[in-house]
Amino acid sequence: MRKMGVVIINFKAYKEGFGKRALELAKIAENVASRCDEYVGIAVSFLDLPVIAREVSIDVYAQHVDAVGFGSHTGRINADMIAEYGAKGSLVNHSERRLKLADIEFNVSRLRELGLTSVVCTNNVPTTAAAAALNPDFVAVEPPELIGSGIPVSKAEPEVVENSVKAAKEVNKSVRVLCGAGITTHEDYVKALELGAEGVLLASGVVKAEDQKRALEELVGLL
Amino acid sequence: MRKMGVVIINFKAYKEGFGKRALELAKIAENVASRCDEYVGIAVSFLDLPVIAREVSIDVYAQHVDAVGFGSHTGRINADMIAEYGAKGSLVNHSERRLKLADIEFNVSRLRELGLTSVVCTNNVPTTAAAAALNPDFVAVEPPELIGSGIPVSKAEPEVVENSVKAAKEVNKSVRVLCGAGITTHEDYVKALELGAEGVLLASGVVKAEDQKRALEELVGLL
Amino acid sequence: MRKMGVVIINFKAYKEGFGKRALELAKIAENVASRCDEYVGIAVSFLDLPVIAREVSIDVYAQHVDAVGFGSHTGRINADMIAEYGAKGSLVNHSERRLKLADIEFNVSRLRELGLTSVVCTNNVPTTAAAAALNPDFVAVEPPELIGSGIPVSKAEPEVVENSVKAAKEVNKSVRVLCGAGITTHEDYVKALELGAEGVLLASGVVKAEDQKRALEELVGLL
Amino acid sequence: MRKMGVVIINFKAYKEGFGKRALELAKIAENVASRCDEYVGIAVSFLDLPVIAREVSIDVYAQHVDAVGFGSHTGRINADMIAEYGAKGSLVNHSERRLKLADIEFNVSRLRELGLTSVVCTNNVPTTAAAAALNPDFVAVEPPELIGSGIPVSKAEPEVVENSVKAAKEVNKSVRVLCGAGITTHEDYVKALELGAEGVLLASGVVKAEDQKRALEELVGLL
Repeated sequence: MRKMGVVIINFKAYKEGFGKRALELAKIAENVASRCDEYVGIAVSFLDLPVIAREVSIDVYAQHVDAVGFGSHTGRINADMIAEYGAKGSLVNHSERRLKLADIEFNVSRLRELGLTSVVCTNNVPTTAAAAALNPDFVAVEPPELIGSGIPVSKAEPEVVENSVKAAKEVNKSVRVLCGAGITTHEDYVKALELGAEGVLLASGVVKAEDQKRALEELVGLL
Repeated sequence: MRKMGVVIINFKAYKEGFGKRALELAKIAENVASRCDEYVGIAVSFLDLPVIAREVSIDVYAQHVDAVGFGSHTGRINADMIAEYGAKGSLVNHSERRLKLADIEFNVSRLRELGLTSVVCTNNVPTTAAAAALNPDFVAVEPPELIGSGIPVSKAEPEVVENSVKAAKEVNKSVRVLCGAGITTHEDYVKALELGAEGVLLASGVVKAEDQKRALEELVGLL
Repeated sequence: MRKMGVVIINFKAYKEGFGKRALELAKIAENVASRCDEYVGIAVSFLDLPVIAREVSIDVYAQHVDAVGFGSHTGRINADMIAEYGAKGSLVNHSERRLKLADIEFNVSRLRELGLTSVVCTNNVPTTAAAAALNPDFVAVEPPELIGSGIPVSKAEPEVVENSVKAAKEVNKSVRVLCGAGITTHEDYVKALELGAEGVLLASGVVKAEDQKRALEELVGLL
Repeated sequence: MRKMGVVIINFKAYKEGFGKRALELAKIAENVASRCDEYVGIAVSFLDLPVIAREVSIDVYAQHVDAVGFGSHTGRINADMIAEYGAKGSLVNHSERRLKLADIEFNVSRLRELGLTSVVCTNNVPTTAAAAALNPDFVAVEPPELIGSGIPVSKAEPEVVENSVKAAKEVNKSVRVLCGAGITTHEDYVKALELGAEGVLLASGVVKAEDQKRALEELVGLL
């Protein structure tokens, strides 16, 4: 029997994942989550987060936090702020929002202190090992060339997933590895779990799908 | 008789200007605005913006927008997004959130297309002239060394204000110049208007004041 | 009779424009310059600059300077440093090395104080006007989508060149406008001058040419 | 008997470590190196590197490399370029030139492929462990608050040095840990070695010393 896995959906700045449509998609995710065995979380924009975190029962993540505390930081959103609005945690260092090493560490530490979950994104095996050394909850490895490609990392570069899991665990037994980039189908997802990942981080496969609900149902194996 | 001026309060990432306290301060600003002749606007964090824009009648600005459209831009908030949540406009290029020239231009153009107000922050006379050439609604000149100092630019470097106004108008007659940095008292504010500015952008003078309401009342001349 | 124009060749980080090949190409440029009526300058890497500035009689530019003075700035090269090694000036804000507005201003001012020439790169008409307000020697407008395309801006978007010249001159009569992106042939170059530009900034058209000498000779009208 | 250690002197963008004075200081370092048992290397500016690497027999490092290959990268210097000019290796991610995690990894890998030495700078224990996972030659831990302070990390925060060594070795046995920030005297240096570091990375203690030669002699124990 297949083990239960983690599915985190990144709404990015997609039109289909913003504003009213973000709330609709969040409700869809909540509904699908209630009917499957997987853990389903969503990562939404700062503007959408306050409402969505109040309106749905599934975990809501920020897509980014800035590596600052409170203070003279015009335009910045830090870990403490998303905590106050009910976020479960945050993506950190997504390939579209890369951070300096010192800032990744700052965020991971602060999120942990606040009891929030950190999902550090990385681009290959060595950076996955490095991120694991910072003791985040999750590392999500995503080869940049496959992001948004529809070509699943679990098929195109299975060794990246396997070696990332191995490298991360060698550095830090408690870290959990997700994989991302190109994940669209249930087959991709199952393959990711077989390769040792504990789940997937995905975006366009669900958010840009013509039928978002059906896409998510298919992904988690409900169809 | 003194002309009516513009007062924009930047809540930054101050603890005293975030979450519940942001909403309280927004209500204070709304109340003071209703009792004075000045235009009072506030610039709040992305997380606070949706609620505050709904709850108060004064104009609410974002503190920053990212120079992107909708799409694969994890963790980004663009001009279109703040429009959808009722923002009046946005600060652009604040000294704590400096942008590349091409990105300032992108934001100013997009904000204008959306009917939103742009307030481009600059650090000296030449950058004020340059910003004016981009045709924003406002340029707010703030010598960085005076920000948060309590030493008002209108007193410490009056020639920066005067020359900024002059330089901006030479490039673009329709642009309006604000000044910032160290503005705390009504005297500072009046001086700014006398020097040709059409108002002030300020932060700590109100947000970090022991009595925020009294500080704002004093600033706009109600005490 | 066609007026004399300015040709600046950006060697970028091309293999064909680095190290020994940079020196060779610099000698070619010097040779061609001596046989034509155009001003020919070259912009080379920091590592190549000291030797090349000593070895050739044409003007040698840096491709970038950091907006700092001397001090605790590990890994940075400022305007003073390139002056000491004989540079004529520097490109500033190239599309592959975009700078914050405040840093462009810092560089332009410092280069001017040192008697060096600044060539500020921009991406469209409004940013050209903004750059002109900073009073650099040159503004080089290069629509990013055409850089390296082989499609000359002077043909694909002639109005960008014309309007940039007009907008720049309105803000600052003394600034000189170059155009770039896709410039390869003498025809492109002549067209640029006809549109009001005082010359071109180009890179791949010469540096990546199979026969660099012939490409440059063709560009300046020697063939 | 005290073990032999590593001393790398970062010339930064100090006036006292640039141009002719850089060459003079390089000669001093070469001279002192020849009379002591320590390994002495120097990290110089890009402009100075070509001459100095040719003129002295000690190892010369770059202070930074950009995470790119050859190509359309105006203003960038990559690992391949410094190799061609005789550099021994490069500092990476210095606190004054922080890099994104993916770029640190890119640089470390490329430097290794080229047979060059990488010295990755970090700011605390977790980032030291993370950097060690990337398999650089050295990690140099420097608490930012002590850099340039004259307060040696080996005295002010000895546990940072000890724990960094421990954390790095747990992740990667072959990595060598240096410490930096505030190192000035032989006592500081010896203390660093006692705490498990294999040497020091320092800058102002030598470069800004009134008598650079004497300062370096004192540091390595020749006085």
